[in-house]
Amino acid sequence: MRLVESRLTGPVRVVGVGLLGTSVALGLRQRGVEVILADASPTHVAIAVDLGAGRAAAPGDEPELIVVAVPPDVTAQVVASELAAFPDAIVTDVASVKAGILQDLRDQGADVTRYLGSHPLAGRERGGPLAGRADLFQGRPWVVAAHDDISYRRASAVDDLILDLGGTLVEMTPEQHDRGVALISHVPQVVSSLMARRFIDAPSDALGLAGQGVRDVTRVAASDPDLWVQILGANAASVRDILVAYRDDLDRFIDALADPAAPGARRRVAEELAGGNAGVSRLPGKHGTDKRFATLTVMVDDRPGQLARLLAEIGEIGVNLEDLRLEHAQGRQVGLAEIAVLPEAVDRLSTELAARGWRIAG
Amino acid sequence: MRLVESRLTGPVRVVGVGLLGTSVALGLRQRGVEVILADASPTHVAIAVDLGAGRAAAPGDEPELIVVAVPPDVTAQVVASELAAFPDAIVTDVASVKAGILQDLRDQGADVTRYLGSHPLAGRERGGPLAGRADLFQGRPWVVAAHDDISYRRASAVDDLILDLGGTLVEMTPEQHDRGVALISHVPQVVSSLMARRFIDAPSDALGLAGQGVRDVTRVAASDPDLWVQILGANAASVRDILVAYRDDLDRFIDALADPAAPGARRRVAEELAGGNAGVSRLPGKHGTDKRFATLTVMVDDRPGQLARLLAEIGEIGVNLEDLRLEHAQGRQVGLAEIAVLPEAVDRLSTELAARGWRIAG
Repeated sequence: MRLVESRLTGPVRVVGVGLLGTSVALGLRQRGVEVILADASPTHVAIAVDLGAGRAAAPGDEPELIVVAVPPDVTAQVVASELAAFPDAIVTDVASVKAGILQDLRDQGADVTRYLGSHPLAGRERGGPLAGRADLFQGRPWVVAAHDDISYRRASAVDDLILDLGGTLVEMTPEQHDRGVALISHVPQVVSSLMARRFIDAPSDALGLAGQGVRDVTRVAASDPDLWVQILGANAASVRDILVAYRDDLDRFIDALADPAAPGARRRVAEELAGGNAGVSRLPGKHGTDKRFATLTVMVDDRPGQLARLLAEIGEIGVNLEDLRLEHAQGRQVGLAEIAVLPEAVDRLSTELAARGWRIAG
Repeated sequence: MRLVESRLTGPVRVVGVGLLGTSVALGLRQRGVEVILADASPTHVAIAVDLGAGRAAAPGDEPELIVVAVPPDVTAQVVASELAAFPDAIVTDVASVKAGILQDLRDQGADVTRYLGSHPLAGRERGGPLAGRADLFQGRPWVVAAHDDISYRRASAVDDLILDLGGTLVEMTPEQHDRGVALISHVPQVVSSLMARRFIDAPSDALGLAGQGVRDVTRVAASDPDLWVQILGANAASVRDILVAYRDDLDRFIDALADPAAPGARRRVAEELAGGNAGVSRLPGKHGTDKRFATLTVMVDDRPGQLARLLAEIGEIGVNLEDLRLEHAQGRQVGLAEIAVLPEAVDRLSTELAARGWRIAG
């Protein structure tokens, strides 16, 4: 699929073809951009080439832009060597902590007039080139960590990259960025991991009571520790500041629970919880357009063909399925299909499905 | 819809027709059980009657079983007055903390030979009678807080209730229950609320970077503070014990971040994160057995009938679909169907679908 022509004219070199690098490469290929792939692992390069992400690097390559997508610990070093090896190229990186890398490059005397760090807020649970998707960055924020040593004209190559990949450009200083991601990504990771640690020695029958709430709170606790040690190490000061404030709240909470009948104890607990209400309400909505669809829940017997029959009948009724989620009830031979459709279609669909004998659960 | 006959023979009185009470009543009505509704709010009773949840209470009612579904703070008092008002009835409640209620009843000299507390692990984000659903408890754990003063024969009325409503009966002592829910519900609530509190004064551009991870961690922070003050107050000792252990981990984490380059600091951070991995892996899967299934992601064009065709072909291939999730890629005319099947079937399914022209995305 060829979309609108890219504003990038020269080839783009992608260094590191894991999830992010491969996704960058696939997205650029869709725009008709020439992509050159490099990675410490020849196997990863071969896989990415097979995926249609570009061609392997060769002597004499003259990239216009270089995207460094390697682990955070080695990003500064790889950026420095790319700046040295390709003296006409603009270099960016996609690491999730920004101030330290720029400082490192300055300390090394690297040519930061050609470096502009960036950070796409996108990811998946799986890593590696096979997890790469051309649309990974579509509609996601992509921070450009602005500094004063790169000219406006040179910086535009990075803007073009983000535009090509469908990201939403957000300009911040490296320090603003690092404080921001500490708050909305790094501290939540720590909070979730420390919660999940409490399950290590817990009785299984207690864990058997777990519902969606605790699953949500601890989902990111399954993240890769190797990657997160690097991220947290690189952003230690910002993460620590927020964790200290968090601990102060926690201490007050623990004190209040020591004697919940004491004067003021319930009020303090209520205030902390109400603060959580106020805080979470400030997070912007999921897609900006959460409310586009209405949902209908249909009970589906766990027999072969039942779900296919349901979907075929929805098609016959003439309603377009916007999204679908099937969930098996625990230990029961019935599933719940949550169907998302346009709001104006939901009543008719509900009526017609019921008339065809489907059980509508909500 | 009338399902298998209930083993309950007499009427069931439901006191409190919020989400849980109304759902109990609706589920029992589906089994053909006579349901009597009582609530401090006549409006709520009228709504629940309109929903088909039963009839309003009347003088001379002789319930076999009474289900008290009122806020935790007043549960013990309402249970005591129901025990006194209906001297032949068995009484249960559905409050989410159990030991304190039994102790209260004993302290008051209530007839606990007719009381057996219980707790269905089910809920929705919405409250009130209109949120009630007959299938709310289907496949969900429902704890019976066993004690020695009620006879086996009398307790069977509560077992029958849980069976009627499709819950999975879990027997625990009140103390085991309270420690269990502290771990898998009450502490996660606190951890999430305190995280969300950090957003109150945060710059909006930082919050604009939020992705799915932080949304998941803080989703339950939107819960009702009034209800949670009651729950946390009633289970303060168990919640506090776990929070103290959590704080000890947090203190170590904060220390390690003070100088992440110090000897051993990275190892300590890595250990805390790896502990989170180990803990979260102990949570049973959505279906009780997370690891039963392997998943395959198939790209599905966003044209009518495509998903139905995919499911029909999976049926032809002879593989049973265990679970399915459809996700539209943002801004693209293609969806990703995540298909869960038994692990031994995944390779064959992948090969045969690819042979039929489906694009396998992972």
